[in-house]
Amino acid sequence: MAKMNAFYAQSGGVTAVINASACGVIETARKHKDKIGKVYAGRNGIIGALTEDLIDTTKESAKAISSLRYTPSGAFGSCRYKLKSLEANKREYERLIEIFKAHNIGYFFYNGGGDSADTCYKVSQLSEKLGYPVQAIHVPKTVDNDLPITDCCPGFGSVAKYIAVSTLEASYDVCSMAKTSTKVFVIEVMGRHAGWIAAAGGLVEDHGIPVVILFPEIEFDQKKFLANVDAKVKKYGYCSVVVSEGCHYPDGKFLAEQGTRDAFGHAQLGGAAPVVANMVKEAFGYKFHWAVADYLQRAARHIASKTDVDQAYALGKAAVELAIKGQNAVMPTIDRISDKPYKWKVGVAPLSKVANVEKFMPRDFITPDGFGITAKCRTYLLPLIKGEDYPPYKDGLPQYVRLKNVAVPKKLASFSI
Amino acid sequence: MAKMNAFYAQSGGVTAVINASACGVIETARKHKDKIGKVYAGRNGIIGALTEDLIDTTKESAKAISSLRYTPSGAFGSCRYKLKSLEANKREYERLIEIFKAHNIGYFFYNGGGDSADTCYKVSQLSEKLGYPVQAIHVPKTVDNDLPITDCCPGFGSVAKYIAVSTLEASYDVCSMAKTSTKVFVIEVMGRHAGWIAAAGGLVEDHGIPVVILFPEIEFDQKKFLANVDAKVKKYGYCSVVVSEGCHYPDGKFLAEQGTRDAFGHAQLGGAAPVVANMVKEAFGYKFHWAVADYLQRAARHIASKTDVDQAYALGKAAVELAIKGQNAVMPTIDRISDKPYKWKVGVAPLSKVANVEKFMPRDFITPDGFGITAKCRTYLLPLIKGEDYPPYKDGLPQYVRLKNVAVPKKLASFSI
Repeated sequence: MAKMNAFYAQSGGVTAVINASACGVIETARKHKDKIGKVYAGRNGIIGALTEDLIDTTKESAKAISSLRYTPSGAFGSCRYKLKSLEANKREYERLIEIFKAHNIGYFFYNGGGDSADTCYKVSQLSEKLGYPVQAIHVPKTVDNDLPITDCCPGFGSVAKYIAVSTLEASYDVCSMAKTSTKVFVIEVMGRHAGWIAAAGGLVEDHGIPVVILFPEIEFDQKKFLANVDAKVKKYGYCSVVVSEGCHYPDGKFLAEQGTRDAFGHAQLGGAAPVVANMVKEAFGYKFHWAVADYLQRAARHIASKTDVDQAYALGKAAVELAIKGQNAVMPTIDRISDKPYKWKVGVAPLSKVANVEKFMPRDFITPDGFGITAKCRTYLLPLIKGEDYPPYKDGLPQYVRLKNVAVPKKLASFSI
Repeated sequence: MAKMNAFYAQSGGVTAVINASACGVIETARKHKDKIGKVYAGRNGIIGALTEDLIDTTKESAKAISSLRYTPSGAFGSCRYKLKSLEANKREYERLIEIFKAHNIGYFFYNGGGDSADTCYKVSQLSEKLGYPVQAIHVPKTVDNDLPITDCCPGFGSVAKYIAVSTLEASYDVCSMAKTSTKVFVIEVMGRHAGWIAAAGGLVEDHGIPVVILFPEIEFDQKKFLANVDAKVKKYGYCSVVVSEGCHYPDGKFLAEQGTRDAFGHAQLGGAAPVVANMVKEAFGYKFHWAVADYLQRAARHIASKTDVDQAYALGKAAVELAIKGQNAVMPTIDRISDKPYKWKVGVAPLSKVANVEKFMPRDFITPDGFGITAKCRTYLLPLIKGEDYPPYKDGLPQYVRLKNVAVPKKLASFSI
């Protein structure tokens, strides 16, 4: 087979370690110059491919590429854009083939979550359906940890570590203040459908912290929740609450949707944390504080999990190796070999079984009362937050890299998306 | 002078490094056993003194005390409790003297902010007014950085570093997403009256990040603010906003006070960040995300500034040395010797000049338009966030210490506060 170039793109919400996967892809491709030509990155994800806005990664130094390993965010830009089915939007797929042909692209590496796996799977079918040879490999990435088959997803371990560390620190704070001031601290975390991130807050129980977790998988029961918080405050003097943004009532309404209006009658912006904090205040009068971590949690490369960074890099590397072996329509996975000591290896899953499947917290990872995590969950989570992998600092701030992102000269007519 | 015991207490909102000051006090006192007997800590601050709830720190191992250097929060408990004047509540001062006499206490170390400096000053006057010999030394602590005379306050450097790092990371994230998704990120930070913490967010401009800062010192002008954000989004594709919780309209009303009501007619809990984010959305339709760091920022020992940790320890140590030298009614300070290279030494200030004085951001630290920081401010801030001082980790989480906090046997009748 003639030497082909590769296309790499980042998709969906970025993470603290998606660039570590990019680093794995590019460094590994550079080591196989006999098989893979240039790596072109899509500027702003798949949009970069459709609009022929390609970045020539060969213009970046080895040092710049290696710095991706410790730089959060998506260095080439990401996007929220899902390709429709081939039947619904054949035009876009034909455009992709034009681009691939024009730039001699034979490898398609797509770094994203569930929706992106679906896009990658569709691209993998191009060979068969449109007669163009391309090998599409999905590199998993999602803070939500909701992809199937793989034991965990790069991005998750670091956000889990951030939430566990932050909950620990804020709980120490509340504990100090509880005698005369704040007794309840509420932190809102990401996870619209799956409670993996919220679960990480439960790890602080090993440090003697009373914590109540509100999972999206468990229908919210206000009475039981309040009783649980009150019992903990009475026993420990204080309590921390970790609420998932996806926590909802039995009718599906999110806690954050309170139908509040401001002085002008505009719908008030959400935040489950203030809602929960207010509930506790109304019921018991306890003074509270609340935090919404939002992007801070998924961007927090400064406190990334070493396990997570290593796995993100390993899966980028594995994707290229799978491509070289001639594979198509697959995703490298993390396979857990043992819990203690934690051992893992890279496996491989067919994309047909990954696309559009969400993995939720198993019921036996959540305590019977619905407000905590079990020993089984703890055993699963702990290795994923293990190890620190600090970025280099200069003058007090991390030295994250900014790539040059030099555009590849266009060869085709423009295309509107 | 006969060997006297010492009393140490933590007061007001705790920080990532107040325990480093406690460590400085206790370790230094232990080195001067010829001059200072036992160090008793107040459980929950001054309340511990009033209720004779004293902690015997001699029961803690050298290792436990040295671990305080990297443990956030207040290890002995803090409180929000301000002593009235001697005239208004003589009973409490007389009680303090009873406690001091009963436990042979001749040194009073109070670790807190402006209000606490006032309490400490009042205690320092006991010798003269009530005829009991006690030396009261204030150890400065406040994330707000609003104490006078001292160049900076322990606690501030670490929260500044947290906000600068978090703003940098979240801005990298937004930059990645801006093409098709989030264009404006808003982070709310502490600082009810002084904008020092918000100013720290401005340090990311050196990393090419467009940022708009809303200070409590500058009256909020919605039109100018929106124009500033829009200009940055148009130029850079995205923009970060750092809003101080104390940001307010010309009439003094805080941004967070929107008069919002929930479905039950209850006043809606604040948060300046969602208010600001909504404003931008209403005006331009830009997709946004917002975070409220709350306690996370002041408890974030995992990303503490080494400068701050060193200074917190040094001032605890200096307080004991001042006491040994016979000083009363003073506060050790950080005196800046030079900016580049950053050099500092410990100075001393009379408490009469510290109590109840707030230090705000000088106008020439804020850009003329009111939305950024000047080079002068940058020169001031940068050394304070410099250096990392990571805590030890085990199984992915910091190994913060929990002291035994053994109570000193009571000798007096109970006292109600």
